[in-house]
Amino acid sequence: MDEPLSISKTIHKYDNEQIFETEDEIVIEFPLTIYINNEEFATMVCSPQNLDEMVIGFLASEGVIHFKKEIKEMNIDSDRGFAYIELHSKEVKNQQYFSKRFIGSCCGKSRQFYFQNDVRTAKTSMAKTTLTSLQCIQLMKKMQEDSFVFKNTGGVHNAALCTAEDILVSRSDIGRHNALDKLYGYSLLNGISVRDKILVFSGRISSEILTKAAKIGVGIVLSKSAPTDLAIKLADDLNITAVGFIRGSSFNIYSHPERIIEN
Amino acid sequence: MDEPLSISKTIHKYDNEQIFETEDEIVIEFPLTIYINNEEFATMVCSPQNLDEMVIGFLASEGVIHFKKEIKEMNIDSDRGFAYIELHSKEVKNQQYFSKRFIGSCCGKSRQFYFQNDVRTAKTSMAKTTLTSLQCIQLMKKMQEDSFVFKNTGGVHNAALCTAEDILVSRSDIGRHNALDKLYGYSLLNGISVRDKILVFSGRISSEILTKAAKIGVGIVLSKSAPTDLAIKLADDLNITAVGFIRGSSFNIYSHPERIIEN
Repeated sequence: MDEPLSISKTIHKYDNEQIFETEDEIVIEFPLTIYINNEEFATMVCSPQNLDEMVIGFLASEGVIHFKKEIKEMNIDSDRGFAYIELHSKEVKNQQYFSKRFIGSCCGKSRQFYFQNDVRTAKTSMAKTTLTSLQCIQLMKKMQEDSFVFKNTGGVHNAALCTAEDILVSRSDIGRHNALDKLYGYSLLNGISVRDKILVFSGRISSEILTKAAKIGVGIVLSKSAPTDLAIKLADDLNITAVGFIRGSSFNIYSHPERIIEN
Repeated sequence: MDEPLSISKTIHKYDNEQIFETEDEIVIEFPLTIYINNEEFATMVCSPQNLDEMVIGFLASEGVIHFKKEIKEMNIDSDRGFAYIELHSKEVKNQQYFSKRFIGSCCGKSRQFYFQNDVRTAKTSMAKTTLTSLQCIQLMKKMQEDSFVFKNTGGVHNAALCTAEDILVSRSDIGRHNALDKLYGYSLLNGISVRDKILVFSGRISSEILTKAAKIGVGIVLSKSAPTDLAIKLADDLNITAVGFIRGSSFNIYSHPERIIEN
């Protein structure tokens, strides 16, 4: 899809003690409502690129599908903001659990938090991949060089699936989770094995982002920003290496440091 | 509530070509599941402060309540992360519309996007408040001086309800919308008239943030960051003045500039 990430707009600017008109680049926010088997399922507010990937990644993330072959037909009306999915199955799997909390028998502060659908789809990583410190720094640098929109509009998150050496695919979105859904959809649509890949992300590692990474199936998440305490607990739990604050020539390792090795 | 926003944790750091252990401040992410009349309503992932305000603000924002007197009883189990609300009414208003899209009869790209519950609760602003350019800059400066957590952890959004001269109340949260729900709840719990107030926010103005501002009822939103195109359209629509990129001594006005006057 060739939709732009941002548009030009005339605004009023205050500078040098004066208000004057000027042109500014504004990031686009696009609502997409997903129907499954003719029923409204969810509305995502997103950047209007790679919508097919985002929808497929989101449905896989929610446990509605596991493979693209479960989708009989998908039509995206990108003018009006609707995605119509028809599944081979009449029944929409796991719909009753959508955004419902998983409550274990010994729930409490010592126990991690999951949504019902996360318990079904977030996988404990079996990845044997390792990265050198230098590779961590270089992958983040490469992703940032690839993405100029944030600098222009202050508005999007960038995410990339990488090998230890290079970026395979990168996606941008105003929604942090959408950028990851697009990568997930890309890997499902193109039959890419993700277990040995690395996820590089511009935003904070929240529990939602960490869970998405586990669903995609990567063993290492690199971020420019900080994780939350809950994300670190989930990373410990799901055997994922969470690396954050990759800035200049330093970074922090928050979980499973054994995958980051000396240069 | 005296829960901290962040906790200290031992992590591995890479710096000066070495990996070593060090202490780091990690922002807390707390899941809170809301039950209304004994039925699971929603789960919010938030910073664990001012949960009562957040729950009330969220319910008002979704059109479930309009006044605090509609709540018969509220119990928050902050150890396990559950909020139990009993309403005087047996019926939960607008529940069927929760996160459902509003589809108008002439839907298309020229028409703005709302969720069903937003159409019911987002108010067109009647505010006559004005601000001078200098006041815009000073309010943002005051809010940032008030909030140190972001600098320490890279993790929370700050929001404040203000008069033209000063901050009335400020709240922090890892979730941008939660910070606003807390302000909304605060104003409902304390019977504060918001029409003549100003909302100051550290994060980007997305459609969701703009809609929340309209629900709270303010006429002016000041942000350190950029708005999206959809947020600007909604601001035009709802008669809200959206000011962004307030940095140093300059800023941008994206909608209804008539409320920002010369010094």
